[in-house]
Amino acid sequence: MYRSHTCGELRLHHSGTSVTLAGWVQTVRKFGAITFVDLRDRYGITQLLFGEELNAQLDETPLGREFVLQATGKVSERTSKNGNIPTGDIEILVESFKILNKSAVPPFTIQDDTDGGDDLRMKYRYLDLRRNAVKRNLELRYAVNRATRNYLHGQGFMDIETPFLIKSTPEGARDFVVPSRMNPGEFYALPQSPQTFKQLLMVSGYDRYYQIVKCFRDEDLRADRQPEFTQIDCEMAFVEQEDILNMFEGLIKHIFKAVKGIDYTEVVERTTWEEAMWQYGIDKPDIRFGMKLANLKVPGHTFLDKQEALKASPFAGGATGFGVFDGAETVIAIAVPGAAEYTRKQIDELTDWVKRPQIGMQGLVNIKYNADGSLKSSVDKFFGEAQLKAIADYAGAQPGDLILILAGAEERTRKATSELRLELGKRLGLRKADEFKLLWVLDFPLFEYDEEGNRWVARHHPFTSPKPSQIDTMIGNDPRIENAAEYLKHPYAGIKANAYDMVLNGNEIGGGSIRIFQRELQEKMFAALGMSEEEAMHKFGFLLGAFEYGAPPHGGIAFGFDRLCSILGGSESIRDFIAFPKNNSGRDVMLDAPATIDDKQLDELSIQLNLK
Amino acid sequence: MYRSHTCGELRLHHSGTSVTLAGWVQTVRKFGAITFVDLRDRYGITQLLFGEELNAQLDETPLGREFVLQATGKVSERTSKNGNIPTGDIEILVESFKILNKSAVPPFTIQDDTDGGDDLRMKYRYLDLRRNAVKRNLELRYAVNRATRNYLHGQGFMDIETPFLIKSTPEGARDFVVPSRMNPGEFYALPQSPQTFKQLLMVSGYDRYYQIVKCFRDEDLRADRQPEFTQIDCEMAFVEQEDILNMFEGLIKHIFKAVKGIDYTEVVERTTWEEAMWQYGIDKPDIRFGMKLANLKVPGHTFLDKQEALKASPFAGGATGFGVFDGAETVIAIAVPGAAEYTRKQIDELTDWVKRPQIGMQGLVNIKYNADGSLKSSVDKFFGEAQLKAIADYAGAQPGDLILILAGAEERTRKATSELRLELGKRLGLRKADEFKLLWVLDFPLFEYDEEGNRWVARHHPFTSPKPSQIDTMIGNDPRIENAAEYLKHPYAGIKANAYDMVLNGNEIGGGSIRIFQRELQEKMFAALGMSEEEAMHKFGFLLGAFEYGAPPHGGIAFGFDRLCSILGGSESIRDFIAFPKNNSGRDVMLDAPATIDDKQLDELSIQLNLK
Repeated sequence: MYRSHTCGELRLHHSGTSVTLAGWVQTVRKFGAITFVDLRDRYGITQLLFGEELNAQLDETPLGREFVLQATGKVSERTSKNGNIPTGDIEILVESFKILNKSAVPPFTIQDDTDGGDDLRMKYRYLDLRRNAVKRNLELRYAVNRATRNYLHGQGFMDIETPFLIKSTPEGARDFVVPSRMNPGEFYALPQSPQTFKQLLMVSGYDRYYQIVKCFRDEDLRADRQPEFTQIDCEMAFVEQEDILNMFEGLIKHIFKAVKGIDYTEVVERTTWEEAMWQYGIDKPDIRFGMKLANLKVPGHTFLDKQEALKASPFAGGATGFGVFDGAETVIAIAVPGAAEYTRKQIDELTDWVKRPQIGMQGLVNIKYNADGSLKSSVDKFFGEAQLKAIADYAGAQPGDLILILAGAEERTRKATSELRLELGKRLGLRKADEFKLLWVLDFPLFEYDEEGNRWVARHHPFTSPKPSQIDTMIGNDPRIENAAEYLKHPYAGIKANAYDMVLNGNEIGGGSIRIFQRELQEKMFAALGMSEEEAMHKFGFLLGAFEYGAPPHGGIAFGFDRLCSILGGSESIRDFIAFPKNNSGRDVMLDAPATIDDKQLDELSIQLNLK
Repeated sequence: MYRSHTCGELRLHHSGTSVTLAGWVQTVRKFGAITFVDLRDRYGITQLLFGEELNAQLDETPLGREFVLQATGKVSERTSKNGNIPTGDIEILVESFKILNKSAVPPFTIQDDTDGGDDLRMKYRYLDLRRNAVKRNLELRYAVNRATRNYLHGQGFMDIETPFLIKSTPEGARDFVVPSRMNPGEFYALPQSPQTFKQLLMVSGYDRYYQIVKCFRDEDLRADRQPEFTQIDCEMAFVEQEDILNMFEGLIKHIFKAVKGIDYTEVVERTTWEEAMWQYGIDKPDIRFGMKLANLKVPGHTFLDKQEALKASPFAGGATGFGVFDGAETVIAIAVPGAAEYTRKQIDELTDWVKRPQIGMQGLVNIKYNADGSLKSSVDKFFGEAQLKAIADYAGAQPGDLILILAGAEERTRKATSELRLELGKRLGLRKADEFKLLWVLDFPLFEYDEEGNRWVARHHPFTSPKPSQIDTMIGNDPRIENAAEYLKHPYAGIKANAYDMVLNGNEIGGGSIRIFQRELQEKMFAALGMSEEEAMHKFGFLLGAFEYGAPPHGGIAFGFDRLCSILGGSESIRDFIAFPKNNSGRDVMLDAPATIDDKQLDELSIQLNLK
């Protein structure tokens, strides 16, 4: 061993002990005849003091930043203590030292506030990983990993490894494929998730399965997507939705406690997908703050359960006389607390914000509900004060609030209002970094309508069960859509999934469902998705086969591990929580991968390039 | 939840409790008006008793093997108890039941001694996994996984995930590659091991790293190889060989205790590679038994350290007069304890055994050292009794032993003797299933000579350091081999690696090394392997770069997780310990993978087939 102690463990009570430390030179400070060196390792920083005799040696072999140094000496109480670090009471009076390895000058400083840009840090990721900020992230990631395993082990779950070289069955996302040398012309696929395998394990009787496992999706990468990502993947047999919700709120609460020291004792709130869309305009609402959507007007075919509630809207009577609202499919308001005194400039800026192409709205209507109870709006021409008051009341506004109204096509308007709400929540400091609010979103639609193919697509995935009460609806009806214009009237349009998402502070951290376990129902699902019987057998014959031999009721969930860590770590970026991430083109710039391969390799794999 | 208890937990003290169980029908036995059903789940088997009223219902909806059944009733003491199962004291008086899913008749019986052949069981792996024998294996695997993580966590190791989509740098085994859609003409590779990443993590200061991780090798599969396999992968910084050996004997001992309940308190034996080859003819000897090799004659260029020992050989004087021995490069004897009374037939059978093509020897010489001290051999014509006695003594034989002698070319003869030793060890019951003997093999040669390229190849891998005392030899000499015939005189031929293998009962379960951490030495290594500077930079530029910025001394080890589990589970086959293994052609016969993919997929990946 090159050391007797780490750079993080020596304290005052070690005074007088002979120790050997090894680590990296963080700083070198010369004061006349003596030199101070801060030596750093994974565990901390310890100050080394080189006295006069050694200084001559240091002159011969000068130390530089990031040199690897081994030093032996006595622990000694410091005269000027450093209260900022745990070893700040002591220093090492160095008696001998050895440079274990030199270092070139690093391309950026190894500090929390580094001077390295993103590209440079990625290229020299092995240096970036030395920075405390990155180290803390990886430590947090390991703590989440460990807490997850401990909880699930305690609950009787078994970690069972599923294969990585599987069969390509692209449903939504593209598969990464792997040419097989031994089977020319054939390919393996890398798993997008172990979905079918964990279901097979349920059929096999392993009633509590989990894995922390890499998954792969060949998608066009958005800012915060990685082609390979990690999932906490779980499945249980003989359970209903309620059992899953309880088990996995337990997991997340355990992680909060183990990793953040937070006792999450509150009941985890639950809402339906429809309610979330109605109240927040999004299926993963941030419920740390209110500012709920006031649905002044929505098209008749949506929110079928809300027809009664809509009657309370001041717009329920019909045309308002204001063309923008009357011509819009949807009109939604939010009441921004305490913002009635926003200046013209601030409101103009918000208007510009909703007009940005990412949001894409035409404009923003505002009503100031002044502290004195008076109302003033940008559409005073069309609405009297009583009407404005009615809108304010419907939006739940209090005197002092600012009411913002968006109007346009249903989907875009709802999304825009949701984003405006989040933006204002951020600006008003309502999205507190140290507050964590969990939410279950339930009862998603089982299907979405695919206009292009005039068919259904699975909203979650093709293995999700409908609500138990709707199984007969699904089996008893032909999935084909006769009349594209009236697809909403098809019995399948109203089928809800036995599915659930877990949302944390406005991020979907996990999702899952109770699965189909009956062959007939699974076949119906494949048919609904436009798969022929042959195609279904070719792709999923093993699963349909398994359902013939005593498949138990089962369900599960998967958490996005990278995302969960980044939220717990208070960061927007999952890349900060991955040791060796890829950039937005899917490249590892440190390795310079992907790269070309030899013709011999191509030849052995019975493939050739086909570049356009 | 579909159940209140599992099928493994009810005992006599539960009598009178109302319970609901769910599981699979193992057996149905009708006795007149009552029916017994054995219900099985992951946790055990519980007997259900269906009384007269329910029997009518059972007649309407008969239960078959592997049906999924939910049954509610009262726990009751059995009249005839079954001592073989933990729940054997009780049964459930069923009050109501529900068939949760039917089952077709399984293609083989779900029993320890199943009637299913290998192919059938692989095709229906989800049913095979229901068998107790397979379940026990996966449970053992999980126990090893858990024990490994607990030990390493306790020792301060961090689980850090390394990427799966990396760069192809084939050195030895072929890489599996993954075409990149976003980077046409370029490929990722799947890692053969996280070797370079774990070294980079050491450079980054994460001084104790581990992972239980999938690795991939596109090799022609032998009986017990899998294209994807799992490794316990570990690395430490600021350590020397001794630290690694101590740390990881600790791991294996911890696993023994946690998984098998075995206190492995003995000192783990150590030997050098040369000693192992000399004494056992193999670098992974099974030391549960002796029967060591007696080297009567070896060629001069091998075992340079054994020249003195060889002088004690009865053949040291020169020609023996027996042409087979005198013409052979190598002559090795083993003394088989208590086998002097082997019949002619038994000896003929052993002779046939060594003549099989897999062993490939010409014949087998035997000397019977009879219990009365007399000696009788198959070569009496050439050797007098005194000479035979000298051979017997040299082989460490006792009266009653049978001495077997093989002669031929060094490598083949040594290997054959080693295999003969193992075979006899097995036949004599010396390789006990419940005995575990660990051994460290140290000081491997750093290089092997590659005749074809007249160059060196790395015996372990190109990142392994030479012994500290030989670093100067390596740096100070030109790796090129001027005279192929005299390659053994090259200074590199004698360089030993700072490497170690852990052997358990004759199986290599793990191996590793202290790594090179100096750029100059690493460059020398690449040069020795015949890599140009450009090639080295293209393939491993990131690692050479990392060594510029303060790389610490480090080393590590990797254990073959599948193999370790199979040995602990007492099985020859690693497939029995993998949930979804592939067959010897690399196929998953359950999925029917690999498989062809769509032209659209090929096109998007900018590749096309090139079938011969």
